[in-house]
Amino acid sequence: MILEPLYVTGLVEGEGCFCVSFSLRERLKMKIETRPSFFVSLNQADLPLLKKLHAFFNCGAIRYSNTDRTYKYEVRSVSELMRIIIPHFKKYSLHGKKLNDFKLFEEICKTIHANLHMNAKHLVEIIEKAYLMNPSGKRKYEKRDLLKVIDEIMV
Amino acid sequence: MILEPLYVTGLVEGEGCFCVSFSLRERLKMKIETRPSFFVSLNQADLPLLKKLHAFFNCGAIRYSNTDRTYKYEVRSVSELMRIIIPHFKKYSLHGKKLNDFKLFEEICKTIHANLHMNAKHLVEIIEKAYLMNPSGKRKYEKRDLLKVIDEIMV
Repeated sequence: MILEPLYVTGLVEGEGCFCVSFSLRERLKMKIETRPSFFVSLNQADLPLLKKLHAFFNCGAIRYSNTDRTYKYEVRSVSELMRIIIPHFKKYSLHGKKLNDFKLFEEICKTIHANLHMNAKHLVEIIEKAYLMNPSGKRKYEKRDLLKVIDEIMV
Repeated sequence: MILEPLYVTGLVEGEGCFCVSFSLRERLKMKIETRPSFFVSLNQADLPLLKKLHAFFNCGAIRYSNTDRTYKYEVRSVSELMRIIIPHFKKYSLHGKKLNDFKLFEEICKTIHANLHMNAKHLVEIIEKAYLMNPSGKRKYEKRDLLKVIDEIMV
């Protein structure tokens, strides 16, 4: 049985995440890789539900996460995020605090899609917005460390 | 803005709980009180969403839970569970492992609503079903301890 669009939005309100993470990459012009991702984590008992979610969006992939021993349905491709994921949540809106994360996520994905994250000013904006999202989440880098990397490039 | 029924089902798939708990009560004929409850727990940031959920179902109450420092929208009244909550999830079905919990919950509420939980055979069935639900949850009593109480009454 196929999932209903509004059910999917409700499930994501509780179990989904719009996340933008960063990695330091010497070879990149801005030295920082920006990686947006949309995912839903569930326990093994709900793997069939994740497969239905995968079929619903028809993009992304399911993987096992050793870190928290859950299964994750995840979409990382910026073009799929722009073409499939973001339009879904524009049409079938979130109602809780995750709506704020989604709005920031949409702005960030648009900036990346327009290739503006190669520009220092826009990359700083992306970092500022990303660090407003999921405040309870763990971060590999402090915000100030990323901003410092950009500062050093601009000198 | 009012919540959509299918969104509510999706949210409950992730964040909701159908639970049946038990307490020992000397004054009761069967010595065991059976308490079914439907609840959704969210952090303080999502208190406005819980209020929308309360308005949606138009029954139950919101309370703060010291145990896990969340807010809970909860419905405990068997007649409201039978009249409002259960019909919602019959019409707008769950899709994940919570669907099994819901089916057991419905059976248990029907039995209680028909006052059959005052009968030892039915109470044993209720206990057996309740301990199949939310297997990861904590329990005040071991199943065998509750069954022993009924055994002792029947002697």
